[in-house]
Amino acid sequence: MEEIIIKYYEKPELKNPILIEGLPGVGNVGKLAAEHLVSALDAKKFASIFSKHLPPQVLIEDTGVVRLVSNDLYYHKSKSKKNHDLIILVGDYQGTSQEGQYELAYEVLDILQGYGGKLSYTLGGWSVGKIVTGPRVLGATTSLELVEKLKAADVEFSKDEPAGGIVGAAGLLLGLSQLRDIEAACLMGETSGYFSDPRSAQSVLESLAKLLKMKVDFTELEKHAKEIDDLTSKLNEMKPAVEPSGDELKYIG
Amino acid sequence: MEEIIIKYYEKPELKNPILIEGLPGVGNVGKLAAEHLVSALDAKKFASIFSKHLPPQVLIEDTGVVRLVSNDLYYHKSKSKKNHDLIILVGDYQGTSQEGQYELAYEVLDILQGYGGKLSYTLGGWSVGKIVTGPRVLGATTSLELVEKLKAADVEFSKDEPAGGIVGAAGLLLGLSQLRDIEAACLMGETSGYFSDPRSAQSVLESLAKLLKMKVDFTELEKHAKEIDDLTSKLNEMKPAVEPSGDELKYIG
Amino acid sequence: MEEIIIKYYEKPELKNPILIEGLPGVGNVGKLAAEHLVSALDAKKFASIFSKHLPPQVLIEDTGVVRLVSNDLYYHKSKSKKNHDLIILVGDYQGTSQEGQYELAYEVLDILQGYGGKLSYTLGGWSVGKIVTGPRVLGATTSLELVEKLKAADVEFSKDEPAGGIVGAAGLLLGLSQLRDIEAACLMGETSGYFSDPRSAQSVLESLAKLLKMKVDFTELEKHAKEIDDLTSKLNEMKPAVEPSGDELKYIG
Amino acid sequence: MEEIIIKYYEKPELKNPILIEGLPGVGNVGKLAAEHLVSALDAKKFASIFSKHLPPQVLIEDTGVVRLVSNDLYYHKSKSKKNHDLIILVGDYQGTSQEGQYELAYEVLDILQGYGGKLSYTLGGWSVGKIVTGPRVLGATTSLELVEKLKAADVEFSKDEPAGGIVGAAGLLLGLSQLRDIEAACLMGETSGYFSDPRSAQSVLESLAKLLKMKVDFTELEKHAKEIDDLTSKLNEMKPAVEPSGDELKYIG
Repeated sequence: MEEIIIKYYEKPELKNPILIEGLPGVGNVGKLAAEHLVSALDAKKFASIFSKHLPPQVLIEDTGVVRLVSNDLYYHKSKSKKNHDLIILVGDYQGTSQEGQYELAYEVLDILQGYGGKLSYTLGGWSVGKIVTGPRVLGATTSLELVEKLKAADVEFSKDEPAGGIVGAAGLLLGLSQLRDIEAACLMGETSGYFSDPRSAQSVLESLAKLLKMKVDFTELEKHAKEIDDLTSKLNEMKPAVEPSGDELKYIG
Repeated sequence: MEEIIIKYYEKPELKNPILIEGLPGVGNVGKLAAEHLVSALDAKKFASIFSKHLPPQVLIEDTGVVRLVSNDLYYHKSKSKKNHDLIILVGDYQGTSQEGQYELAYEVLDILQGYGGKLSYTLGGWSVGKIVTGPRVLGATTSLELVEKLKAADVEFSKDEPAGGIVGAAGLLLGLSQLRDIEAACLMGETSGYFSDPRSAQSVLESLAKLLKMKVDFTELEKHAKEIDDLTSKLNEMKPAVEPSGDELKYIG
Repeated sequence: MEEIIIKYYEKPELKNPILIEGLPGVGNVGKLAAEHLVSALDAKKFASIFSKHLPPQVLIEDTGVVRLVSNDLYYHKSKSKKNHDLIILVGDYQGTSQEGQYELAYEVLDILQGYGGKLSYTLGGWSVGKIVTGPRVLGATTSLELVEKLKAADVEFSKDEPAGGIVGAAGLLLGLSQLRDIEAACLMGETSGYFSDPRSAQSVLESLAKLLKMKVDFTELEKHAKEIDDLTSKLNEMKPAVEPSGDELKYIG
Repeated sequence: MEEIIIKYYEKPELKNPILIEGLPGVGNVGKLAAEHLVSALDAKKFASIFSKHLPPQVLIEDTGVVRLVSNDLYYHKSKSKKNHDLIILVGDYQGTSQEGQYELAYEVLDILQGYGGKLSYTLGGWSVGKIVTGPRVLGATTSLELVEKLKAADVEFSKDEPAGGIVGAAGLLLGLSQLRDIEAACLMGETSGYFSDPRSAQSVLESLAKLLKMKVDFTELEKHAKEIDDLTSKLNEMKPAVEPSGDELKYIG
């Protein structure tokens, strides 16, 4: 069996597409943001990535029909000439081993370059270990030009944050992009890391929308964030019993 | 050394065979069911699968002669035209790594397709963490048509069960079947998961027999189940000291 | 880098050699026995096996010069026509992963078959978790004929021992031999498993010497065993504080 | 994706270069020493080694620009004819798996031999589990000639130290050098192992400088060592609460 099997449902024609990545990770910030983008843009699934680097597991739909865990690629064709087409990567899991992480990220960049893409944005969370009310968005990029571009989209850069760099797909896609002459930036939403964090996902998407010069409808995400906000304000009243260790601050999905 | 070595004792001629899988797992339900089927049908071993994805271990027969741990394939040729030939997969272990799980399941589907097979049933257990008196059989399939077919054979479908999907060979064979245009369904017998559960295996086999339109003699299994029933009723009188965690509910052999 | 690198110091001409394996394991019985055989026969090292399946480690000789950890092959040419030439396998470690175990054992059988060898004896320990005064030698083989041959050399066969079969090189070489039409038997010396056990190694070698129709001088081993005997009799006077769990009984080096 | 990707920034012409290795390890002695050498000689980075055997992680520079974790090669061209050119290996991590350790070390020797190099020095720490005031430098080599050469450079050889040999890149490069007819020696600085130890790194570099017949300016390292000395003398006043176990003594970076 090949290490990675890609099943294409469609081979769309895309012009110089931008890759947006949002896989599960800290606070599920990247995953929530990317999935909301798929839904808000009504993006279309065109390929699934299966791999022995993902768990040997099927998920069961409500109908009783299964699907093998995967990473999935959606596309969105831009309606105006000034915008780019998009490829959005979402999925059930990140690669479960270090080697798997490399193989899967490398494969996704193969696909992006196959479509002539030269830029990718990865979305992730950045755990601060306490409830955050107005989550900042932190950035990291493959070039100084992109640093300036991100700052103009309200993304902050902070010398000591995140300490330890970025581990996982959101970071590795930047690192491997650098080796392959692809521009890439990571947007990390500040999050407690205690639960799935739609508020942080929204902050990330707001910056991303500015970068893409697109409008994104946040109604659904805001509703979901509001529910969590209510919950967190209740949690805020109760002091957390245990503070997370510094180690947890390092991981960014 | 190749990743997988297949030793054929015989190359039977089979017509459109159905694969039945029953490897070790929760409550050993699948293994007990498949081994009983081999015995009840007097199925014949035609191939053994050896692999570095199985433990580096030999088992010693009563004679003092060893055999390397393996997965084994048996066949049963149908006596009437209305029934299918069967290939039954049993074994000492499942693949011990994630990658091994994928490799072994993929290889078994290669063999099935080599014989022109287009359908497989995987048998497993579904742990509920408490003694079950009349075990239900839960299903999952690769298509809506199979869902209906299973319901007619007293297999239940439940939106929230099993939570987390199906992990291991019983699930992976469904997922990989989907990628290779093979129809597949999983029959999961409800079980406490505390011990080898012949009662649950019998429930699974009863549904399988309906699907295969075969009669299976359950005398041996019932005797074994009766012994366990006696034991479990005694255990039932004593309340379990520790409840298993929710995590354990996820794994299905 | 290849998975396995074999460095030949010499390519001896051997006639139908028998492989003797003794790698580290429970009570180091196999290792002690094989190393004593190398020394007693003044066998000559002709090849070293290096591999990424062994630890990334060098050992330092007293001179300050290092050597990379390895498995080593020695040969002994028979002086009389009635005896076989021998290849003796000793080493610093067994393969450290399941896959490594398979790869290394498979490679050793390649070498044996390259010399036309058709028989191998593997030497190991069998932990009973308590001090043993007159250690029995237990056997397991690839054929019924070998079972009879071993019984004539005072090797015992016991239905329930060792439970769980044989894990590691001593077992795997038997299992893989079976797949490659090589005859093989394992001699397991009973041992407490608490320390390196020369007494058990001597028992194993006594049986092996009968099988090989050779005389082996045990002076060195007996001296070493005597020291341990003195120690164990002292230990015997003090009751062991903790009984090892049943799990430990399974592993045979 | 290949297992190892090497990105060359420049292909320097080097004459019979000597490899100096200093990767992270116990007390970071080797890393500190090699990094100081890069800085003191103003050595130039000519290649980076990326690999799936390193963590899937990017580090973020103060500018906000990332770089994928790597091992890096610097060169220094000798100004006088009597000295050798140098290749200095530093990096963020050692290979994270046993296999990765072998692959990366083997690749580095490929590069060294590609430049006609025939000698390498590896730098590491050797943990004694207590504060050391005048750290000794211990040695290990691939030949008796090198033992004598090291002794003349104030490197000590001790029969029982380090027990268990040398694990990791510093040892493996010696072991693999032996297989490829490269001369190699390891210089291990005595260190508590409790923190990054510039004092031990300086001792190692002093011996190395004698071997290379070079002068190295230690001002920076001494300043750093002085700070740590102040700290350790304070720590010395407080007795350590817990003694490290003997196991920790084995590992040499």
